[in-house]
Amino acid sequence: MNNSSIEAVLAHIDANIDASRARWFDLLRIPSISAQAAHKGDCIRAAEHMRDLLAGMGFEARLAETAGLPGVIATHHHAGGNAPRVLFYGHYDVQPADPIGLWHADPFDPQLVDGPGGPRVVARGAVDDKGQVMMVLEAIRAHLAVNEGLPVNLTVLLEGEEECGSPSLDAMLEAERAALAADFVLVADTNMWNRDTPAITTSLRGLAAVEVKITGPNRDLHSGLFGGPALNPIRALTRILGDLFDATGRIAIPGFYDGIAEIPADVLASWRATGFDEAGWLGGIGLQQASGEHGFSVLEQNWARPTAEINGIFGGYQGDGSKTVIPAEAGAKLTFRLVPGQDPARVIDGFRAFVQQRLLPDAQAQFQVYGASPGLMVPIDAPFVRAARRALADEFGKAPVLAGCGASIPVVEAFERQLGLQTLLVGFGLDDDCIHSPNEKFEMKCFHRGMRAEARMLAAFGMAE
Amino acid sequence: MNNSSIEAVLAHIDANIDASRARWFDLLRIPSISAQAAHKGDCIRAAEHMRDLLAGMGFEARLAETAGLPGVIATHHHAGGNAPRVLFYGHYDVQPADPIGLWHADPFDPQLVDGPGGPRVVARGAVDDKGQVMMVLEAIRAHLAVNEGLPVNLTVLLEGEEECGSPSLDAMLEAERAALAADFVLVADTNMWNRDTPAITTSLRGLAAVEVKITGPNRDLHSGLFGGPALNPIRALTRILGDLFDATGRIAIPGFYDGIAEIPADVLASWRATGFDEAGWLGGIGLQQASGEHGFSVLEQNWARPTAEINGIFGGYQGDGSKTVIPAEAGAKLTFRLVPGQDPARVIDGFRAFVQQRLLPDAQAQFQVYGASPGLMVPIDAPFVRAARRALADEFGKAPVLAGCGASIPVVEAFERQLGLQTLLVGFGLDDDCIHSPNEKFEMKCFHRGMRAEARMLAAFGMAE
Repeated sequence: MNNSSIEAVLAHIDANIDASRARWFDLLRIPSISAQAAHKGDCIRAAEHMRDLLAGMGFEARLAETAGLPGVIATHHHAGGNAPRVLFYGHYDVQPADPIGLWHADPFDPQLVDGPGGPRVVARGAVDDKGQVMMVLEAIRAHLAVNEGLPVNLTVLLEGEEECGSPSLDAMLEAERAALAADFVLVADTNMWNRDTPAITTSLRGLAAVEVKITGPNRDLHSGLFGGPALNPIRALTRILGDLFDATGRIAIPGFYDGIAEIPADVLASWRATGFDEAGWLGGIGLQQASGEHGFSVLEQNWARPTAEINGIFGGYQGDGSKTVIPAEAGAKLTFRLVPGQDPARVIDGFRAFVQQRLLPDAQAQFQVYGASPGLMVPIDAPFVRAARRALADEFGKAPVLAGCGASIPVVEAFERQLGLQTLLVGFGLDDDCIHSPNEKFEMKCFHRGMRAEARMLAAFGMAE
Repeated sequence: MNNSSIEAVLAHIDANIDASRARWFDLLRIPSISAQAAHKGDCIRAAEHMRDLLAGMGFEARLAETAGLPGVIATHHHAGGNAPRVLFYGHYDVQPADPIGLWHADPFDPQLVDGPGGPRVVARGAVDDKGQVMMVLEAIRAHLAVNEGLPVNLTVLLEGEEECGSPSLDAMLEAERAALAADFVLVADTNMWNRDTPAITTSLRGLAAVEVKITGPNRDLHSGLFGGPALNPIRALTRILGDLFDATGRIAIPGFYDGIAEIPADVLASWRATGFDEAGWLGGIGLQQASGEHGFSVLEQNWARPTAEINGIFGGYQGDGSKTVIPAEAGAKLTFRLVPGQDPARVIDGFRAFVQQRLLPDAQAQFQVYGASPGLMVPIDAPFVRAARRALADEFGKAPVLAGCGASIPVVEAFERQLGLQTLLVGFGLDDDCIHSPNEKFEMKCFHRGMRAEARMLAAFGMAE
């Protein structure tokens, strides 16, 4: 595809934006709330709507039945054997609209209203993920209208259970392995760096979750009649957890940092170039200092360094006032956020050993592991990432931020685990879009430039070596 | 009083034990459960019963009205100005009988049944405290019958709310200060060392109760999106509490041990002479090693050394599974058991400073104090203690154990605080008497020897220099 051709696609997008918005509104009007059984029919209706919409665009489209709500799988494989295979993933389900009373209008009657950033569409799912999905599909539609074809062999996968924990996703990926074969996954479910700056999320932290329970006496004891000689499991627990960090904020579990790669220099440079406002970010959550490892910036601590968080702690009496008890047990729930190079199983084993080595006499530890997944990083010099960086720079006049994400995105981990595929995360939401909250919005400027950027990316993928 | 006279009193006790038991049963038949409003009338009936019984013995007896259930105050002040003034304290109320289904008979229909230690009386209040009260009153009755007088000027105070936290006691002690004037308090509400060995409880630990709450971020945060740079209050809390004990089990708060006196050599010798079974005591609560300060025995750790116990800890998610949250706050409830010489206010202040000095940046600590009372010790060479030791040795053929108690006894603290009086704690219960539990019992042998020992103690008080 040459430059004049992409310019024609972009011009088509610009000229047809009202029609694009109308099709987007059609989808927003279907209250496809996957978490609520009363909306099961609406979810199926949304799946059928998307199947028919894709079929109307020339895709081979079908529902992929699951134990829960169906997926939609649609293929457009006419770009030839040398063109890359792209799997576009999105989801057609939305969060519940509660609390309804805080919405300014019916959450399923999309409104075009003015805001500080220009016109915006307000509805449940405006951005997450119906808006971002329609943005990609409208970019595809423009390619098809102008060129009667696509620069890549494209498969579309739309999930119907993303907002309720993706209970059927693993089974669907396994069952549809052949249909979903691709070179990489494209996801549009993340945010821009800011209104004027695009972002590619190139790393996600993994997660290892474990609960430890410390037992001691064979029953709750009176802390006067037994206190002193009787082991207190809360003491045993806090003694261990109090050792978890050293004075520089490093996690003291031996081997915890083994295998972690340096952050690539150009990624670090990209982060530094953002001019990220550390004080503002910390101030927004009521803090003044970064609490993680000394010597790393806020972004590095959150995006590129592993953590140990005690998410919950419990033991003994928690009601009003005081109770003179030595409890029979105490426990804590921890999650470790992991970065590429760390082995989740080794992290869990290291924590177990750390606890066992610090147990007071007569204390016993029991462990419950709630899951372990590795950190993921997309090589920023992979052809599809280079193509996306180029396309985004062309559209926005500046390089995208190569962002990390401190959290995990389970579908990305599932694509890696089930299909062996890396995922390109590019999205055009903004941090203040109120996803999952009342008055969710997607700004028209973001939708519009998002369509254009997606069209450019599709073209760039097709030209990638 | 000479030896032949006390022998006559003892002989009277032996000869009239059936009548003593019958009067004890009369009291046990009144279900004076102070915690249950439905039994308010029974409690008042028990108070009137005791008033009338004491009046029948020659006391000036009356009810002492309170905001709750009445006390009974009775005086027998005919021993002359040189005789010591003794305030005998007991309580006429009892614990609820629940769970009723586990009793072998009606808890308020006392039964005389055989057991491994000989005949026993089974009823709610058999020992706690109706049995022990009647044991003392029957010893007094024997003195009056044989000698037509008492060796001391005696005031009896019976409380009706001991089993529900003594809400009116402080006000009653203050209102009746003149009526209750005495040289010391005698209480019969504790246990023997074992069936053959009497005990005097000469020390009680005090209590300082405090809650600490650590706050950090201004709201609960997602531990992926914020973890690393965001302060976790559970981390801040466990870091502090993990420092609370050093490697030898000592409490690391500066000045915590200031002012503690050495345990008197003869008290220590008395404890060592008990042959206390440390392994058996620890095994009974599922433990093998004493958890307190190294270098102290189990008895010393529980009776004579202060403790810091974390009675409860809380923060973040405590439900099933895992939740990726950094909570906005976390907290712990602690009690310090104190021994004589420690200043409760200084202990609380020391803990505050200990916490403040270890707070991570941006963490804030709030404290709530739930009370602070000092440890108490009765000087074992006080005349009334020496008299009791002599009397108990005469009755049992061996010296009493000078025991400590790891817990606090609020009435003892109230006598000290309100009336400036020290308390002699001598009782004849056994550890397996099931107080507060179904099938509470008092063994006839304990009741009988208890009456004899109380008679000897009264005589010995009268002869004390």
